[in-house]
Amino acid sequence: MALRSLTKFNFVRQGARSLSSTASLVSVEVNDKTGIATVTLQRPPVNSLNLELLSDIRYNLTELGKNKSRGAIITSAFKTFSAGLDITEMYKPDIERASKFWNTLQDVYEVLYGSAYPTVAVINGPAPAGGCLLSMCCEYRVMVPNSIIGLNETQLGIVAPPWFASTMENIIGKRQTELALTTGRLFSTDEALKVGLIDEVVQDKDEGLQKANAFLGKFARISPFARNVSKQTIRGETLKRMSKDRENDLKRFIQVITQDAVQKGLGLYIESLKKK
Amino acid sequence: MALRSLTKFNFVRQGARSLSSTASLVSVEVNDKTGIATVTLQRPPVNSLNLELLSDIRYNLTELGKNKSRGAIITSAFKTFSAGLDITEMYKPDIERASKFWNTLQDVYEVLYGSAYPTVAVINGPAPAGGCLLSMCCEYRVMVPNSIIGLNETQLGIVAPPWFASTMENIIGKRQTELALTTGRLFSTDEALKVGLIDEVVQDKDEGLQKANAFLGKFARISPFARNVSKQTIRGETLKRMSKDRENDLKRFIQVITQDAVQKGLGLYIESLKKK
Amino acid sequence: MALRSLTKFNFVRQGARSLSSTASLVSVEVNDKTGIATVTLQRPPVNSLNLELLSDIRYNLTELGKNKSRGAIITSAFKTFSAGLDITEMYKPDIERASKFWNTLQDVYEVLYGSAYPTVAVINGPAPAGGCLLSMCCEYRVMVPNSIIGLNETQLGIVAPPWFASTMENIIGKRQTELALTTGRLFSTDEALKVGLIDEVVQDKDEGLQKANAFLGKFARISPFARNVSKQTIRGETLKRMSKDRENDLKRFIQVITQDAVQKGLGLYIESLKKK
Repeated sequence: MALRSLTKFNFVRQGARSLSSTASLVSVEVNDKTGIATVTLQRPPVNSLNLELLSDIRYNLTELGKNKSRGAIITSAFKTFSAGLDITEMYKPDIERASKFWNTLQDVYEVLYGSAYPTVAVINGPAPAGGCLLSMCCEYRVMVPNSIIGLNETQLGIVAPPWFASTMENIIGKRQTELALTTGRLFSTDEALKVGLIDEVVQDKDEGLQKANAFLGKFARISPFARNVSKQTIRGETLKRMSKDRENDLKRFIQVITQDAVQKGLGLYIESLKKK
Repeated sequence: MALRSLTKFNFVRQGARSLSSTASLVSVEVNDKTGIATVTLQRPPVNSLNLELLSDIRYNLTELGKNKSRGAIITSAFKTFSAGLDITEMYKPDIERASKFWNTLQDVYEVLYGSAYPTVAVINGPAPAGGCLLSMCCEYRVMVPNSIIGLNETQLGIVAPPWFASTMENIIGKRQTELALTTGRLFSTDEALKVGLIDEVVQDKDEGLQKANAFLGKFARISPFARNVSKQTIRGETLKRMSKDRENDLKRFIQVITQDAVQKGLGLYIESLKKK
Repeated sequence: MALRSLTKFNFVRQGARSLSSTASLVSVEVNDKTGIATVTLQRPPVNSLNLELLSDIRYNLTELGKNKSRGAIITSAFKTFSAGLDITEMYKPDIERASKFWNTLQDVYEVLYGSAYPTVAVINGPAPAGGCLLSMCCEYRVMVPNSIIGLNETQLGIVAPPWFASTMENIIGKRQTELALTTGRLFSTDEALKVGLIDEVVQDKDEGLQKANAFLGKFARISPFARNVSKQTIRGETLKRMSKDRENDLKRFIQVITQDAVQKGLGLYIESLKKK
């Protein structure tokens, strides 16, 4: 890593600026030689996806697109890849903020799942729920041993939206997705490899970055245009269905989180986290 | 088994009563502790699915739904899981009864494939054609060794309807389904495990029931609501397409069984069974 | 092979006759005992799919359909199965001929992917791009060792159309298809077997023909009608989507090949081939 020529990105965020905390929640380094960007999530302690972190992810991924990136590697600055959606965004919600939160998650999905540039997730620690979704949006996944990944929403009494499910189906097929979603299964690294939810096991983050660069290196001599059209051919239907359903999807989200039973459940869950 | 606290269900069937034979063709036992129902098909000798057996299955599965079942295990009282649709329903058919027969099969499919409660098939013997379909509607399949399962309709000169095919596709994928349907393949237990048509091999029915209870036990602490929404997310499209097409599907069935060539074939087949 | 009773087909081509070169580009031999046809592509040196070869394929496959064939085996007279679309059809194109060329490819796809009779590809050498497509249209694929197969279009700066992609998806699933198309991957024989792109490895063409006949032999006692309806159930959606989109698909093809950048790329590629 030390030998790479890196440029630290300093995109000036316009408009949405106020959403961002002072310290950036996402760092982007671009290798000048390969044109590959490493996008590191760094919201302590576990990259819980709140409105601000999602906004920063959306912003940076969009900027990479505008700059005709040769590829992006998503990873974490911590021992957790991402703990998933920040539950405090759903607990005793301000509806306006909660709506922005969900819309931003939808945006991140569209920008990442549909990105013109190739993407790899270096899953250097647990990736439950929304963390799993982020990694599933990438085109390749490498993961450290003895970790966990999965859409475990039902374990928390909530439901992964249809587009989470479709995205998993596109990777591991309908049968395994049904089993995974209904049981809220968190796969171990080995189980994830076996079922095809990840592509390679790596010893640590450094090896993960090497493998990610190797995967993206395959595209060095391939027409980015032809590559991207092929990607959209495969992902287009899922993306289109999701985009068409954005408003209903938001309504369903707001409806769920404003239920007494769900609020009670989230309250108990947050209490249990505080005690840890 | 002997130690479980069981309640024998005695649903009072209304209206459709006359369809039922005096001796019940389906027995339902509910474990009072777990809330899990064991649904045993018991139409001698091989659970051929005629109008009466299908009506009893539909009735009992629907009642379980109304009673917010925690799960259902489908198995057989005999050495055959189910020999599939009763061919005598199609031979020299009374059109009114044949239509009821097919509509009831459609109902059973909708009730079982779309059930809000989780389901397991303990396949304790051969499960060709309609027997395979029944087991494929469940969320988990365990099977005894040295048996057979598959949609072998083409071997009999008839065709598995599109919703049979979709249901198999959702389990083993398009490629394997095409090979299986065109060749009318009956998979051995080992082959079924390898291709993913079943989930586990068990030594006998008792072990099958244990494994089934273990699978359903996973859901003990999961919100039935969240679980069911996830199931519908995965199965909804297939169910919706089938429900929309019910009338055409019935027409096609009647059209097929009223063909001279098919009647001749069925006649020869029934003769050959009698000689055995 | 020597012992088989073979009838050499001499279909009299009407109308499209002028498209055909004097020496036939496709030979068809029918085994009088089994009714199985061996369709051998023989356009030297590597069965590049130009307008004439595609026309001959379309013609012969259509005739087999009219004659209620019991099955067709597609193979090559050379050491290459097929090098794919003939690039000279796209280089400095006459738009009328290029349109006929593309329409004929679409026809071949519809006739082969949707054929009422069963089909096997004996892939006795490299099958890149259009060669891979031809083999993927068959119901079974056997391949010689140490060869290559895949949709490598992106490696050439062009894009496999959506129906190429769908056809691959129907065999190896969405995940593997995305990886294959974006990287323009050519699978080795062993890799193709592992991912399910081919069904068996055979030592040579003769063993391939034996295996192909063995696969087609499975259908000897199965109703061709029931078999075909099952095939259409699985393939119908993909075929229908392709047929509906034929005109747009042609427009996109013409649009792509009339781009300066693509012409320049094709020119360089043709130059590099000449130097070999």
